[in-house]
Amino acid sequence: MRFYTVEIAGREEILVGFRENEAVYRLNLLARLVPELAVADMNELICRYTPEVKAKLEHLADNEDVLQGAAVKLPEVKLLAPIVHPRQDVVCLGINYDAHAQEAGRFSSEAFGGERPYTIYFSKRVNRATASGESVPRYEGLVDSLDYEAELGVILGRDAKGVSKENARDYIFGYTIINDISARNLQTRHKQWYLGKSLDGFTPMGPCIVTADEIGDEQALDISCTVNGELRQSSNTRYMIQTVSGAIAELSEGMKLAAGTIIATGTPAGVGMGMKPPTFLQHGDKIVCSIEKIGSLKNVID
Amino acid sequence: MRFYTVEIAGREEILVGFRENEAVYRLNLLARLVPELAVADMNELICRYTPEVKAKLEHLADNEDVLQGAAVKLPEVKLLAPIVHPRQDVVCLGINYDAHAQEAGRFSSEAFGGERPYTIYFSKRVNRATASGESVPRYEGLVDSLDYEAELGVILGRDAKGVSKENARDYIFGYTIINDISARNLQTRHKQWYLGKSLDGFTPMGPCIVTADEIGDEQALDISCTVNGELRQSSNTRYMIQTVSGAIAELSEGMKLAAGTIIATGTPAGVGMGMKPPTFLQHGDKIVCSIEKIGSLKNVID
Repeated sequence: MRFYTVEIAGREEILVGFRENEAVYRLNLLARLVPELAVADMNELICRYTPEVKAKLEHLADNEDVLQGAAVKLPEVKLLAPIVHPRQDVVCLGINYDAHAQEAGRFSSEAFGGERPYTIYFSKRVNRATASGESVPRYEGLVDSLDYEAELGVILGRDAKGVSKENARDYIFGYTIINDISARNLQTRHKQWYLGKSLDGFTPMGPCIVTADEIGDEQALDISCTVNGELRQSSNTRYMIQTVSGAIAELSEGMKLAAGTIIATGTPAGVGMGMKPPTFLQHGDKIVCSIEKIGSLKNVID
Repeated sequence: MRFYTVEIAGREEILVGFRENEAVYRLNLLARLVPELAVADMNELICRYTPEVKAKLEHLADNEDVLQGAAVKLPEVKLLAPIVHPRQDVVCLGINYDAHAQEAGRFSSEAFGGERPYTIYFSKRVNRATASGESVPRYEGLVDSLDYEAELGVILGRDAKGVSKENARDYIFGYTIINDISARNLQTRHKQWYLGKSLDGFTPMGPCIVTADEIGDEQALDISCTVNGELRQSSNTRYMIQTVSGAIAELSEGMKLAAGTIIATGTPAGVGMGMKPPTFLQHGDKIVCSIEKIGSLKNVID
């Protein structure tokens, strides 16, 4: 299944799609038959989404009469980020693809004659996540080196603490696409990466969350990014240095990852900073981040 | 005024004290006369604490009859952290006292022949803040270098975005003490400081929030830390490299600091990592962080 957050008549609503590229339905109308689906937002849905609720929802997929009354045409509603207001800062993996480490000139596995023995974690404040279709602010005067980073986003479905790598996937609700917009000058100036990644509007996310069962192997997804139609990033999640399961296990060893936690798993090579000469985002630039089985996250620079 | 969060009969409640070291009162009982004071937790109080509510509350301070029925003896209730569940990660200033920069061997102003021209910002996930009196976990096997950092905590009272340094203090609700417990081995291993600072239980906070009007000049407060009675840190907030107002202005230029935001303003010299030889926290160690006009935050290592 895939879940979208949209705005209908000025109110936040969740839509559910049972199959890729097919019809989507208003969850609050389906809630007449499955009361657990009457939720205020995606955070609440995640917390309520037990195997029982999932089974009830899947059962509705075959009920044409019910579905007909709840159908919505996606292009006719305003899309929001799937989680508009994350409950906590987004946890990010830094430099998690070796080709990106090489273009960044640091933290590559090469020096270790094999796999790099550590993962870089930082966080990103997200007051409000940016939807696919919304514009990204430029902060002229403050930011002179605006950059994109296409990343696989992981959404946890239940509280994870002390979870083993083997069991980590049981805690995943689904996946989305995150564009980890970065102000390279602030990221460098403040030594730690937090502020240069946390400006308002710097976290485009979407277009939807695809549930874990539909994704299958999350370490085998093509991931790409184009700017104004030019292919800049093209890789596959199999090239991550730290895997999704490995990150959940390592993070949760001492820190509870509460249901709704969002993890951005790092970006492949091809960011603007790594180009020769470095080429940063400008007014009007169109960025499209795509991940296999999820879709495309599209934004324009304001 | 000073506000405490406590647990009474298994429920979270807020207490108010009108003067240092004097009686405290249950806010939900005072709410019979001032309905705005009926709040679920400190986050809600902060959002409701307008000048009008403040004036009504101050007015109650002279009403002996009302107060008598709401009085509580602080040592008789279980203290919680003033904000048990921060709404977003705590924003932290790193290496913000020059003497601490020198003991850490990096980021000191010396190299600049004057004031260091940048501030280091990072964040700390706080699933649940630790109260004064509660113990701090050691994470044996995961952490081999547990350290303390006494810091002035700043709590914002209303949304701050694009706030000037001159107006920054208008946005401050109050101040508290934060012990920014750090696992030095994780902080170093993961390159960015986030994970080594974010383990569950690593954010003791309290004992209370003292409102801004009662603190006066926040850049003139003695700050200290003892471990087992031995004075380890002793400084004054006047030695901060970046001031509280300066940090609010710089952070809010591009990132909204929502009401309830907590900023930890960095620690003075004297942490365990800087001792010769480095001396880390052990089972049973008693840490007391004190700041003038606020009080003492006391914790024991588990």
